[in-house]
Amino acid sequence: MPKITMNHGSGGREMHEFIKNTIISKLKNGVLEKMDDSAVLVNPGTNRLAMTTDSYVVNPIKFAGGDIGRLSVSGTVNDITTSGAKPYAMSLAFIVEEGMDLKLIEEIVESIAITANEADIKIVTGDTKVVEKGKGDNLFINTAGIGFINNNVNISTYNTVPGDDIIISGPVGNHEIAMMKARGMIDFECAVESDVRPLNKEIEKLIDEGVELHTIKDPTRGGVAGALSEIVEHAGVDILLDQSNIPIDGVVDSVCRLVGYDPLYLANEGKFLITGPPESSKKVIESFNGEAKVIGKANQSDDPKLLLETEFGGIRRVGMLETMQLPRIC
Amino acid sequence: MPKITMNHGSGGREMHEFIKNTIISKLKNGVLEKMDDSAVLVNPGTNRLAMTTDSYVVNPIKFAGGDIGRLSVSGTVNDITTSGAKPYAMSLAFIVEEGMDLKLIEEIVESIAITANEADIKIVTGDTKVVEKGKGDNLFINTAGIGFINNNVNISTYNTVPGDDIIISGPVGNHEIAMMKARGMIDFECAVESDVRPLNKEIEKLIDEGVELHTIKDPTRGGVAGALSEIVEHAGVDILLDQSNIPIDGVVDSVCRLVGYDPLYLANEGKFLITGPPESSKKVIESFNGEAKVIGKANQSDDPKLLLETEFGGIRRVGMLETMQLPRIC
Repeated sequence: MPKITMNHGSGGREMHEFIKNTIISKLKNGVLEKMDDSAVLVNPGTNRLAMTTDSYVVNPIKFAGGDIGRLSVSGTVNDITTSGAKPYAMSLAFIVEEGMDLKLIEEIVESIAITANEADIKIVTGDTKVVEKGKGDNLFINTAGIGFINNNVNISTYNTVPGDDIIISGPVGNHEIAMMKARGMIDFECAVESDVRPLNKEIEKLIDEGVELHTIKDPTRGGVAGALSEIVEHAGVDILLDQSNIPIDGVVDSVCRLVGYDPLYLANEGKFLITGPPESSKKVIESFNGEAKVIGKANQSDDPKLLLETEFGGIRRVGMLETMQLPRIC
Repeated sequence: MPKITMNHGSGGREMHEFIKNTIISKLKNGVLEKMDDSAVLVNPGTNRLAMTTDSYVVNPIKFAGGDIGRLSVSGTVNDITTSGAKPYAMSLAFIVEEGMDLKLIEEIVESIAITANEADIKIVTGDTKVVEKGKGDNLFINTAGIGFINNNVNISTYNTVPGDDIIISGPVGNHEIAMMKARGMIDFECAVESDVRPLNKEIEKLIDEGVELHTIKDPTRGGVAGALSEIVEHAGVDILLDQSNIPIDGVVDSVCRLVGYDPLYLANEGKFLITGPPESSKKVIESFNGEAKVIGKANQSDDPKLLLETEFGGIRRVGMLETMQLPRIC
């Protein structure tokens, strides 16, 4: 089976042919095909734009429900969307370990193409580097993206206000549990798939309908607790979660109970936390096909904190993740 | 000496504190400090924008004349500049190997801050991932950047036309020879430093003065021969180089002769190839403090190729790099 050699990163003919035949051929668009050092794009001309980046070091690179390619497109699309921007263009950079199967790269590029198409975002510029065997781990991907924000939109983690509903767009924890399974850490049968997917279409629909949203945040590393802790810190409000309302798939719940993980800290790759006035909640829930749920409330506070009302009626303070659960889940 | 642990990439408190204290504190600007998942920027509103990305896997990460931080800012700034755009904002993503010295990261971040300041570009968004010892190599960096193009500017590798002068902005090969030295591959004393630096100010000056430029290209991996081969292919012209006019520092020339490297294939990280009508050449040379030189000419051709008139008067065809010279030089 053909494998990556250091020559694929040399800047010479072999690299150019690899990039042309393996990568660009699958991601076809007029801008990328120019293969210039920078892509030139039309400025759609709204007042503001959003920019984001993430590197992906997920291990293994394929798992139930997704792969590093789908993850890298979804992650960047979702990060752009959290600012209320419409994803416009993204970059794609590979750091490949020498010896990686070419066929595996082709599969990942295919998955990238499918996901970019789903999210309706163009990959306009890229880069490929190769490192020696033992200096990488198959494939690391970096994506950066830009999006443009409609002039009347104002969404940020700083904008949650007392009285806002806290909504999660669907059940929590599936990505991290799928990663545990992919690594053979779960030794019993369980059907769990990562939730990784782009969520921009649902948000664009809400924005186009003029639904008032204050904050959108994706609970990836650090989970719902980590993401809400940032909102608490940025917006200066208390958030009180109602544990009994937090949606969780049965299998994810079971695994959590068995291994002692708190689902509030599990990474998600296809979920949004959304805050806004209670009048907006119905529309948000509809846009996410009824899977979204109101899980809490923002309240006025002089000492902003994240609180959880447990199923037993007690209230406890929830902090950020102190020690690591599972490394390299994204 | 404090070292990076897997916890620095967990999404939890330790990661947030590391990013805040070690990275953001040195790159201070209002946008980055918000620490949102995507940065929100004002759209300056020209008709077109440029976007680019590169990952940096250079080994070692510090070398005479620069380091991976200076390289990553310069590379992205220079790639944006090749489209005639003014660099506007960039992203910064780290993939750190567990066990790396925190102090070394601090030095690299410091170098990034200095170089970004020099190029007058803001780092507006970022990401940090940690991989296990033996799954990375100290530090990989990805940067992506955007810039806006003045409405009257039209610069691309497709725009070189017959009659154009081919200019190099200064002596060739210093970066790659500095990397050889940094790796202990040169066992005699030689004072050579990488040329790595941002070149946007020189080009902005030319654009502001209305100097007509057709193509700007940075001869990094694959060197001058690789970069000109791309121009030949994209623009459909012959390029004839005059070997005796190609500037090269004495020490770089000596090393090339000793180890049998062709300086035309050596990577540069602070040089531009510039094409334009002969009337523009004087202004280009001035903007680069007289270091730039006309090294060739574009000619009409039915079979576009890169040609070199040697010091002995013969003409030979020059191709892209076929096999690798030195891996991981950027």
